[in-house]
Amino acid sequence: MDEGFSAQRRSLIKGAAATAALLAPGAALAQSRRDSDREAIARAVETGQEATLARLREWIALPTIAAEGLNIEAGADHMARLATEAGFTGVRKVATGGVPAVFGVLDAGARRTVGIYFMYDVKQFDPAEWSSPPLEGRMFDHALGSAIRGRGAVNQKGPETAFLAALHAFRASGRRLPINLVLLAEGEEEIGSPNFRNAFRDAEVRAAMERADGVIIPSASQGASGAVTISLGAKGIIECELVASGERWGRGPARDVHSSLKAQVDSPVWHLVHALTSLVRDQGNTPAIDGWFEHVRPLTERERALVAEAARTRPEEEVKRQLGVQRWIDDLPWRESLERLVSQPTVNIEGLVAGHTGPGGKTVLPARAVAKLDLRLVPNMTVEDCLPKLRAHLAAHGFGDIEVSMSGGYDPTETAEDSNVIRAQQAVMTRSNIPWTLSPRSAGSWPGFLFTGDPLRKPAGQFGLGHGGGAHAPDEFFLIESRNPAVAGLKEATMGYVDFLYEMAAS
Amino acid sequence: MDEGFSAQRRSLIKGAAATAALLAPGAALAQSRRDSDREAIARAVETGQEATLARLREWIALPTIAAEGLNIEAGADHMARLATEAGFTGVRKVATGGVPAVFGVLDAGARRTVGIYFMYDVKQFDPAEWSSPPLEGRMFDHALGSAIRGRGAVNQKGPETAFLAALHAFRASGRRLPINLVLLAEGEEEIGSPNFRNAFRDAEVRAAMERADGVIIPSASQGASGAVTISLGAKGIIECELVASGERWGRGPARDVHSSLKAQVDSPVWHLVHALTSLVRDQGNTPAIDGWFEHVRPLTERERALVAEAARTRPEEEVKRQLGVQRWIDDLPWRESLERLVSQPTVNIEGLVAGHTGPGGKTVLPARAVAKLDLRLVPNMTVEDCLPKLRAHLAAHGFGDIEVSMSGGYDPTETAEDSNVIRAQQAVMTRSNIPWTLSPRSAGSWPGFLFTGDPLRKPAGQFGLGHGGGAHAPDEFFLIESRNPAVAGLKEATMGYVDFLYEMAAS
Repeated sequence: MDEGFSAQRRSLIKGAAATAALLAPGAALAQSRRDSDREAIARAVETGQEATLARLREWIALPTIAAEGLNIEAGADHMARLATEAGFTGVRKVATGGVPAVFGVLDAGARRTVGIYFMYDVKQFDPAEWSSPPLEGRMFDHALGSAIRGRGAVNQKGPETAFLAALHAFRASGRRLPINLVLLAEGEEEIGSPNFRNAFRDAEVRAAMERADGVIIPSASQGASGAVTISLGAKGIIECELVASGERWGRGPARDVHSSLKAQVDSPVWHLVHALTSLVRDQGNTPAIDGWFEHVRPLTERERALVAEAARTRPEEEVKRQLGVQRWIDDLPWRESLERLVSQPTVNIEGLVAGHTGPGGKTVLPARAVAKLDLRLVPNMTVEDCLPKLRAHLAAHGFGDIEVSMSGGYDPTETAEDSNVIRAQQAVMTRSNIPWTLSPRSAGSWPGFLFTGDPLRKPAGQFGLGHGGGAHAPDEFFLIESRNPAVAGLKEATMGYVDFLYEMAAS
Repeated sequence: MDEGFSAQRRSLIKGAAATAALLAPGAALAQSRRDSDREAIARAVETGQEATLARLREWIALPTIAAEGLNIEAGADHMARLATEAGFTGVRKVATGGVPAVFGVLDAGARRTVGIYFMYDVKQFDPAEWSSPPLEGRMFDHALGSAIRGRGAVNQKGPETAFLAALHAFRASGRRLPINLVLLAEGEEEIGSPNFRNAFRDAEVRAAMERADGVIIPSASQGASGAVTISLGAKGIIECELVASGERWGRGPARDVHSSLKAQVDSPVWHLVHALTSLVRDQGNTPAIDGWFEHVRPLTERERALVAEAARTRPEEEVKRQLGVQRWIDDLPWRESLERLVSQPTVNIEGLVAGHTGPGGKTVLPARAVAKLDLRLVPNMTVEDCLPKLRAHLAAHGFGDIEVSMSGGYDPTETAEDSNVIRAQQAVMTRSNIPWTLSPRSAGSWPGFLFTGDPLRKPAGQFGLGHGGGAHAPDEFFLIESRNPAVAGLKEATMGYVDFLYEMAAS
């Protein structure tokens, strides 16, 4: 059975190239040379697989976590080494005021240039919640095939390793890269990229990025069935802490006191709880912050059509099972729930911390309470407009003393459906017989607005074949050897980037 | 200067006895013998001081914490040893179904018997928040004199050690104890005594307790100025966790998912936050649980007069400074705030735990959220009546899925103003020139209802000279050598128990 699946996988790798000429008849000559190049590259990918996997495992073992100040310089140095080894030149760290960015170029003497955005940081993790040590990168048997489990496996070290493997394969096979590359990697994506924009103040970085025709971040975009959703953008985000304290409030205690005093003394915890409820209605499902919807742009007809199409092709029950969700908000039908997902701003409580958080009880009246929030923004909301609105709302509702401490965030990002980045993605998927749909935007966030917004205004998106799960959660994984011919493993994902670079070069 | 203060303290110890005859002329003969006994006992207290302090320090080093399952048997064994060494006989552990109780008697062949309730457990602690290791029992220089810092120092190992020191001193001085003792110690007071009542199912315990004329728990009741508030009871308490989870709710995720899904998926954290706000009004200051005030008995005229008297004698600014509080609830004046303190039931949030509680943010939509509550009950509320009301309220307001897990609690307790326990306390204070006031009840809780309620119906209260602070908080302390003649140190507190036992014997 293993052999059978191997054969199927090989045929998937070759099949895409073989059918390519049929699908793009207008570029037959270039396509023919590309086909032979592609076969050589595919062999190099196969040969390099063990090294690629070792590279991924080594990277997983070195988690950079900006929130914890973990492996800041070591992670940046490692990122720089990975880039240099993949062929980037002039690789260096770029000061941002926070965790450094890493910059490099790969000049192929080509007509076109593509910008590559990497994140080299990962989310926090608690080893106690994992099935195997989160930094070990242990292989395990997933329903879809052999997979690697570790923090960062899918978000984003796995896909990024696949991208770098494509560059290694070009070189190993002696094939010329069809497009120039500009790499900019950041180490604070998981805390909302608070300093990444400062990297663009570096004249060389700025000039190099201005030459790019489009920008992608590698990503494992295939669902368990193999289908891909191509997002035309992503929501923005404000990540912040709301802190209530007796000291700032001027009510309640300045330090934790015995809980019997509750009958005489105000509680900063209750104060925070009431401030929180003022931010939402509908059980937390609709933001109620004053003026929050002022600039919210409703879905266009085209966007609604795209969601309807996605609803037809994406299997609701499978998604529900994966998420452990029985009902959508308001018991909405699938399509409406997806419209809600892409179109609505949110106020989410990531975490609550107050008083005694250990086992059992402790009769204290806590002097301080913290809510960790993320607020997703949709076009045309901006951080610059929304953060003051949040503060003004709290002040207007009697919670002006509550400290709003924004740790990171950025505006929504949008890229036109007919841009080179989106069309190249579609071409790759179509040639590989991968079913794809367009989504108006991802409900998640990435700092694409730095590329799509002023002053660069480049098309930018997430792209990549492959499959994984558990981002930001325990048991994060990335599929390495797929048993399902419709779902790319590491090698097929690598070839997806090869194809993408050809497509962008020809765009 | 140290000598001067020593002389003052010695005069306080002697002074109380010297003036006693004037204050109780009707018992002159007994008083005279008692005066000479008392002097011998005071000398023994002085001689035994070093051993007493060592005993306290050793006890602090062995924290029994029921919430963490820490030192359960070791703590009970140590309690039993302390009792035996102090002269109790037949000392043994009594099974309760939880942390064992410890029982012993001291038969002095006297007419009267007093029940002594001990708690040998302590609250949790975080060493990082302390100025010195919480189990070290380090001496430090407090504004009032030399004090010991450690978990349990004042709540209640310090006062209990002073009580035991009184028994040691009776024996060391060869003086006959004027009253029989029954000791019952529990190890789950800090989690709301969930099993302590089961100790009374033991026939010997029950029979011995029925012989008691009254019950006290040793306590350091002096404020920083030396004044004492004698409480005629205490509030009851329900300690519980409210747990919201996607699994029980049938909405939201079964496990933490990416926070971008908030636009499509309900949040168990918001669900809990809304459930919490349904429990209160007035920013958390008034319970709003359906039917909660049904059995609340307003203060009587006598109780209001007692509060007014307390307001006159207790220094508001000093209390505010101690608590780090600038304003009382509703900006109430001092007397009204004290009326509120003794008369009102409360819903306090001890702790909140949901999602990411570590440093920085983490973009998750948590599947579970927990609020740790304590609800203080006033007469004539009962746990039996209130707990179902809490559950019914949640169910009626759309939160029936939220799990209410009660970890402990008990009914309010009340003891008559003219009972032997209260009168004996007053007599001791008056003879020692310690200003005292009566309070209708303590806003805190202790399981006195097990003694004052059915079937025992004994007078019961907290009693003891001495001063300390930081109960349930970092840097808990108990005053050992007082520099202020109006405030008892360890030796004076010990003599307070000697006097109390004489008073109870004569009652």
